[in-house]
Amino acid sequence: MTVTKYPAKQHWAKVARILGLSEGLVYLKSDTLKERHDTDVELVFRQESNFYYLTGYNEHGAHVVYDIKTHHLTLLPHQQSEHEVVWAGRDPSASELLNISLLKEAIVEARIHKSAFEIERMRKINLLSSNAHVVLMKAAKECESETELDALFRYETGRRGAKIQAYNPIVGVGSNAATLYYGRNSTSFNQDLGQLILVDAGAEQDCYASDITRTYPLNGKFTPDMRTLYEIVLEMQMAVLEALKPGVEWEAMHRLAAKIAVRGLQQAGVLRSEFSVETMLEHHVDGIFFPHGLGHMIGLDVHDVGGYPKGVERIQAPGLRYLRMRRKMEAGFVVTVEPGVYFTEYILEEAKQDETLSRFVDWEVLDRFQRLGGVRIEDCVVITETGIDNLTTVPKTISEIEEIMG
Amino acid sequence: MTVTKYPAKQHWAKVARILGLSEGLVYLKSDTLKERHDTDVELVFRQESNFYYLTGYNEHGAHVVYDIKTHHLTLLPHQQSEHEVVWAGRDPSASELLNISLLKEAIVEARIHKSAFEIERMRKINLLSSNAHVVLMKAAKECESETELDALFRYETGRRGAKIQAYNPIVGVGSNAATLYYGRNSTSFNQDLGQLILVDAGAEQDCYASDITRTYPLNGKFTPDMRTLYEIVLEMQMAVLEALKPGVEWEAMHRLAAKIAVRGLQQAGVLRSEFSVETMLEHHVDGIFFPHGLGHMIGLDVHDVGGYPKGVERIQAPGLRYLRMRRKMEAGFVVTVEPGVYFTEYILEEAKQDETLSRFVDWEVLDRFQRLGGVRIEDCVVITETGIDNLTTVPKTISEIEEIMG
Repeated sequence: MTVTKYPAKQHWAKVARILGLSEGLVYLKSDTLKERHDTDVELVFRQESNFYYLTGYNEHGAHVVYDIKTHHLTLLPHQQSEHEVVWAGRDPSASELLNISLLKEAIVEARIHKSAFEIERMRKINLLSSNAHVVLMKAAKECESETELDALFRYETGRRGAKIQAYNPIVGVGSNAATLYYGRNSTSFNQDLGQLILVDAGAEQDCYASDITRTYPLNGKFTPDMRTLYEIVLEMQMAVLEALKPGVEWEAMHRLAAKIAVRGLQQAGVLRSEFSVETMLEHHVDGIFFPHGLGHMIGLDVHDVGGYPKGVERIQAPGLRYLRMRRKMEAGFVVTVEPGVYFTEYILEEAKQDETLSRFVDWEVLDRFQRLGGVRIEDCVVITETGIDNLTTVPKTISEIEEIMG
Repeated sequence: MTVTKYPAKQHWAKVARILGLSEGLVYLKSDTLKERHDTDVELVFRQESNFYYLTGYNEHGAHVVYDIKTHHLTLLPHQQSEHEVVWAGRDPSASELLNISLLKEAIVEARIHKSAFEIERMRKINLLSSNAHVVLMKAAKECESETELDALFRYETGRRGAKIQAYNPIVGVGSNAATLYYGRNSTSFNQDLGQLILVDAGAEQDCYASDITRTYPLNGKFTPDMRTLYEIVLEMQMAVLEALKPGVEWEAMHRLAAKIAVRGLQQAGVLRSEFSVETMLEHHVDGIFFPHGLGHMIGLDVHDVGGYPKGVERIQAPGLRYLRMRRKMEAGFVVTVEPGVYFTEYILEEAKQDETLSRFVDWEVLDRFQRLGGVRIEDCVVITETGIDNLTTVPKTISEIEEIMG
C-alpha cells in the first residue's frame, strides 16, 4: 500500500467529529527552533506531535488555520511574517476560536486509533529500525563497547534518512541491562563476550516512532542459563501476542506475562518449588523480576497518548503500578509488547530484607543468574479486527539469533 | 601532556580574581533534564557551559557552592533533595551571595583565555573530528547522498565516545554549499560525482567543541575550475594562519583574506581586469563572494564567549558585518579560521541589479563557476606567544586530498 499525500484533512475531520462541532475556526502554531542555552547552537528540530498530526508539516515557525464548516485548511509557513499570515483577511471574534483544552483532548482522542496511512508509516520505520537491529547482532562480536553499538544503531538508521531517534537508545551489557532506563551506553566489554547485551532502540521517520528491544549474547552463543532466562521472556511475549485482540484488557495481558515469568523462574529453580505460582502472584513476587509495565501505546510519540482513558487510575501494586496503559484493546491501536525478566540489585536487596518475599526465592540459584543482568524482548504490534499485525521484523528465537550471529 | 583532574578550583580562582573579590559565597545550579514537548522522551542532556567550566560536572540537577576565601568547593549531585543539600549547615545572608550578572561577566572573561588543560581537551576532540573527516573523504565516492555522509560523521565520532555534535553538521553538495547555514543534508548525488561537497562538522567531548570544514570533489579529482577556486580559498587561509599572532587585529585578518579572494577571482577572470583590487575592495566586492566573517572564538561552545569586548560594535559593511569577533589576538585564544568563496544565487542576483557592483563582474565567466557552489576551509587554532598551534589535522592541499581519496 502506498500513501503519498498526508491526510491532514481527514485528521481534522476526526477531531471535529470528536468535538461535536460543525463550524468554527481552529488555529494552531508549530514549534519554534530552539538553541542550546544562551549559545547559538541550534537544537535538532522536531515538530510538536499534535501539530504534525493535523498538518503533516515538519518545519518550525508555521501556523495553521482550519475552518471546520468548509474544510478549508490554510498552512502558513515560516517565511511570512506573523501578522500578514494568519488570518488572511478574516477577523474572527474570540468566540469563534475553540477552547484550547477541549481541542487538545479531541486531538488526543483522534490520535489513539491509527489510520491505514499512519500504520504504513509505522511499518516503514519499524522495518528500518528492525534492519538496524539485525546489523547490530551481526556486528556485536566485533564491537568493544556499548558506545559502539549505540553509534552503529544511529548510523544505520540515520544514513537511511531517519535522523532522529524516537528515544535515546538503551544499550546495556551484563548487569547494566537490569537498570531499566540505563542510558549511559558507555561500558567497555573488556573483551568478555560471554555476556548478554540488551539493545532497546528505535528511530523515527516523518515523526512516527518505532520501539524495539532485543537481548542476545555478544558472542552469539547462548549458555544454558542464558537460554533458560531467554526462553521465559520469549514465552511471556509469545503468549501475549497470541492472546491480543480487540476486547482484551491490557492489564490482563500484563498478568498473563507475569504468571509465565513466575512459573518459568520456578522451573529454573530461582523461585522455590514448595509454593504455588498463585501464592507467589498473590504476594507480587513477579514484581521483583518484572518490575515495569508490559508496554504502551506508540505512534507520533514513543509513549503515545491515550494509555489511560479519563477516570481510569493506576493500580497500586508492584509491576502493575508502572503500567503505561489500562484499557481494553481496540482495532487500530498500535502498542508495544515488551516483557522482561531482570535481576536488579536494589530490588533484590529489598526483597531479601522482606520476610515474606525472601522465602520464595532460592538465593543460591538466583546468585548464578544475577550476573546475566536481564532480558527484554519488545515488538510493536497493530491490534487488528482478529488479532495482531506485528510491525517488528527482527528475529527473536534462539536458533534464529544464533544463526544470524554465526 | 596528560591532565586527569578537572581544574575547577583554578577556574573559580580566575573568576574571583576578575571579580576582584577575596571573600563571599557563590552558588550555581546545573541544567536540568528536559523532555520533548509534553511527551516523556528525554532530550540529550548537555551541561550549561558556565556550570561545566566551574565544575567539570556533566550531570543534570546538580548544585555547587564555592567559598572564595577558603577555596572550599561543594558539589551536590542530583540524588540529594535540594533543601538538605545546598547550604550544608551554613546560612549565608543575601548579601553574601554575589550579584548574578557580575558573576556571569566574570565567568565569560575567565573563559576567553584557554588554559593548558582546556587546550589539551580541544586538541583531543579536534583530532577525533579530524580523523572522522578523513574517513568521509575516503568514503565519499561510495556514498549516494548528503544524508549518508552526515550519518557517517556522527558515527565515526560517536563510536569513539563523542556522543554530541558541537553543532548540527552542514553537508552540502554543489550549489547547496553556497547556502551558508545549509542543514538539510538530504540531497541525493544522483550519481553525479563530479561535484564539490562541503562538509562543516565537529563533535564535542567533555563539553569542548571542535569545528572543521573541508571541501572536495566527490570523486576525488579536482577539475581545473575546482582547482582554481580551491586554491584561492586555501591561499586566503594560509595567509591568515601565517599572519596570526598576539597583537594582530581580527578584522585585519578578515581584510587580508578578502583581498586575496578579490585578487584570486580577478586572476580567474570572474572579476574584470580593468579595475584595481583596491577599487573593488572599496566597493565591497569581496562581500559578494565571501559574505561571512573569517571565524570566531571556540571553546566550551562552538561560538564561544568573548568575541566582542564591551563597547566594541559591529562594522556595517558587507562581510565585515557578520564578523563574530573584533579584538586583538592574545595568547590563549582558540579561534576558527574559515575563509570561503561562494556563488550564492540570491547574493549574485542582488549584485547584478546593482549598477556599481555589476560592472566589476564578468558574468559569463562567473556562470561557469556558479555550479561549483562554493569552497570553505576551516581549522581551529590556538594563538600562542609567537604564532599559532593548529589543532586541526585534516589534510587540505589538493595533492593530499587527491591522494587520500585515491
